[in-house]
Amino acid sequence: MKIKLIYIGKNKSNNIEILVNNYQKKINHFLNFTISCLKNKNRSIKKEIIKESDTKLIIESLSKDEIIVLLDEKGKDISTLEFSNFIQNQILNGGKKLTFVIGGAYGFTKEINKYAKHKISLSKLTFSHDMARLFFVEQLYRSLTLINNIPYHNN
Amino acid sequence: MKIKLIYIGKNKSNNIEILVNNYQKKINHFLNFTISCLKNKNRSIKKEIIKESDTKLIIESLSKDEIIVLLDEKGKDISTLEFSNFIQNQILNGGKKLTFVIGGAYGFTKEINKYAKHKISLSKLTFSHDMARLFFVEQLYRSLTLINNIPYHNN
Repeated sequence: MKIKLIYIGKNKSNNIEILVNNYQKKINHFLNFTISCLKNKNRSIKKEIIKESDTKLIIESLSKDEIIVLLDEKGKDISTLEFSNFIQNQILNGGKKLTFVIGGAYGFTKEINKYAKHKISLSKLTFSHDMARLFFVEQLYRSLTLINNIPYHNN
Repeated sequence: MKIKLIYIGKNKSNNIEILVNNYQKKINHFLNFTISCLKNKNRSIKKEIIKESDTKLIIESLSKDEIIVLLDEKGKDISTLEFSNFIQNQILNGGKKLTFVIGGAYGFTKEINKYAKHKISLSKLTFSHDMARLFFVEQLYRSLTLINNIPYHNN
């Protein structure tokens, strides 16, 4: 199974980028994992317009054979074990492409619901989108160590 | 009010340290915030012994005038707004010293309950302790921007 993370944004923090890349390398020991940054060129100052164009940008980047999982505050709160079971079930069900999506600063419009099969919340807390990316890759790596029954390596 | 974060550990990830320090500086614009790393020299391989000595180390570092808040998976799940309200209430109640504690890899023994007034969970997910520290300082900064009604700055 291939896993992809799509997010809207620019890379703001170099230090977060280094950490995210470290996790990506570790995840790649288990499976093909790519990260795709979509840049919204719309410079509107209206939240609704940004939200709409962010959502459109994401939808246009999706292909039909992807299983889409939104990472969203309003999604289902899950524990690490539940997240790990979720990933494992996707693998067992023969899913070929699993795509996680982190929205822009203002989230998604309802349009996204036609595409998203699952919604997961990493925390009830609001985080910067850079931080959400880091948390996600850490959890994905942690889940893969659980699935493969190997110790978690901090470094 | 002074806020302190105490954690058990060694600084494993330089990049996380840089990010944590950045947030610490930003928090210091609002109030006195210090981070204290306690190093447990006990080299036992038994989880229970490490847990006990970690807890002892934390308890010995506390003073009577501190309000202790454990950051613990089993604590109360809170949103950013709730966390922010919590901090604000501590300030309004005239709390002088608010101390947050992140335990070691195996958590705390029950002994800590005599000292901890509050238990808060940052997420249902399990994170590395380095990551929890980063998670916490980001939330603390975010809360202080909310309390002071100023925009959140990513950089």
